[in-house]
Amino acid sequence: MNYSQYSNDKALASNSVFNYLKNTPLFDNIANNDIIDFAKAATVKHCEKGDIIFLHHDEALYFYIIKSGWAKLFRQTLDGSEAIVDILNDDHIFGITALYQDNRYDFGAQIICNSEIIKIPLDLLRQKAHINQNLSLNALKFTSAIIKRKNTELEHRDLQTAPQRIGCFLLKLCASDETGPITLHLPYSKTLVASRLGMKAETFSRALNKLKDSLDITISGSSITINDVSILEENVCQSCSLCRL
Amino acid sequence: MNYSQYSNDKALASNSVFNYLKNTPLFDNIANNDIIDFAKAATVKHCEKGDIIFLHHDEALYFYIIKSGWAKLFRQTLDGSEAIVDILNDDHIFGITALYQDNRYDFGAQIICNSEIIKIPLDLLRQKAHINQNLSLNALKFTSAIIKRKNTELEHRDLQTAPQRIGCFLLKLCASDETGPITLHLPYSKTLVASRLGMKAETFSRALNKLKDSLDITISGSSITINDVSILEENVCQSCSLCRL
Repeated sequence: MNYSQYSNDKALASNSVFNYLKNTPLFDNIANNDIIDFAKAATVKHCEKGDIIFLHHDEALYFYIIKSGWAKLFRQTLDGSEAIVDILNDDHIFGITALYQDNRYDFGAQIICNSEIIKIPLDLLRQKAHINQNLSLNALKFTSAIIKRKNTELEHRDLQTAPQRIGCFLLKLCASDETGPITLHLPYSKTLVASRLGMKAETFSRALNKLKDSLDITISGSSITINDVSILEENVCQSCSLCRL
Repeated sequence: MNYSQYSNDKALASNSVFNYLKNTPLFDNIANNDIIDFAKAATVKHCEKGDIIFLHHDEALYFYIIKSGWAKLFRQTLDGSEAIVDILNDDHIFGITALYQDNRYDFGAQIICNSEIIKIPLDLLRQKAHINQNLSLNALKFTSAIIKRKNTELEHRDLQTAPQRIGCFLLKLCASDETGPITLHLPYSKTLVASRLGMKAETFSRALNKLKDSLDITISGSSITINDVSILEENVCQSCSLCRL
């Protein structure tokens, strides 16, 4: 679905994608001519909740940037269970590492609410990265940041209690200088938050209630009010090596 | 500690490191002149069990290759708990991603048995990667492989039972065409295996006993005999998306 179907002015449409890519960290310090090539090769798709972008093990032909919306990255086991690899929103990129993983996607990707996704051929990224050192360097920053995040997730699964892990998830929805009181809205359903945290629904429920009872947090549907952010931080961050305290 | 202290022939010592590096995937398709530069800048350290190579958050000046031996990568929380990031042995590399993570190590590294470690300045890697596309590409393959492994670890923590996860750990010690019976030796202490799998000692014990009782596996100290590998595979791999079956 080419963006031009949404605009009579193809040059304007391409320019809009160009401007968007120019502000994407993956394209930092990349010459305009190269970004123009990416913008011309890009298609912008409107996707609806439930749309499958690709499945785990599919041959990888494109990488994707979420211009707006949410996507779930997941894997499924032979016995039918689903593990969430990540849930990403605006400006996040996925599908790149397939280029260095035998050209197969390491997970499936599904849209979880109406979204606008930019789709760019991996072949172009391969060609450009082969001659453009800044692009390789940006890709290395990108993959290194993912590794750091994954190490932290593993650490939290091993060392934090379920209430602490939910608390950490909520803290990430707050600005770093937030003191509270603040009312947050869960970005997606409680079921999906539980899956994202690798928890069964009952574990998640019990843990949310513990948070509510012990840390002056009130919950109403998907709205969560934290009265004192520092109390939550103190409880959560003592069991984390990244030291927000 | 320069390798030349272990050999009167500095050229021979450097040549030995050169030959080792030449066979390391990170240096695939890299010109001999560049590998010679890495070999000359490298030092080979004999390390003893317990030696700390670097701590989490330390300024990152070197990356390391385990020529022989074992190293534990770990993080510690404010409340004193330790999470294992990885346990690596011969030919594995660590410390590289610090180059793309604000030059700080994302974890600590400690030697867990007498080892020989090659230490190479990160600055040299930075300079060389800046002008050598193959080196950047190899680094991207390296980081992408780590991401895939971390995604699998997270998936297993979320979807596999404790016995399945220990079973998976044991299967990785078998050759892919192994049918059994086979006797394996745990590569490090049961305590460390438990930590590696993010399990408390009691959980690990109980799970090991369950494996023993239900899957025709016998355990004697750190020796584990699997009588029929396919029975173990069938039990473990049904709850994994990577489909060894």
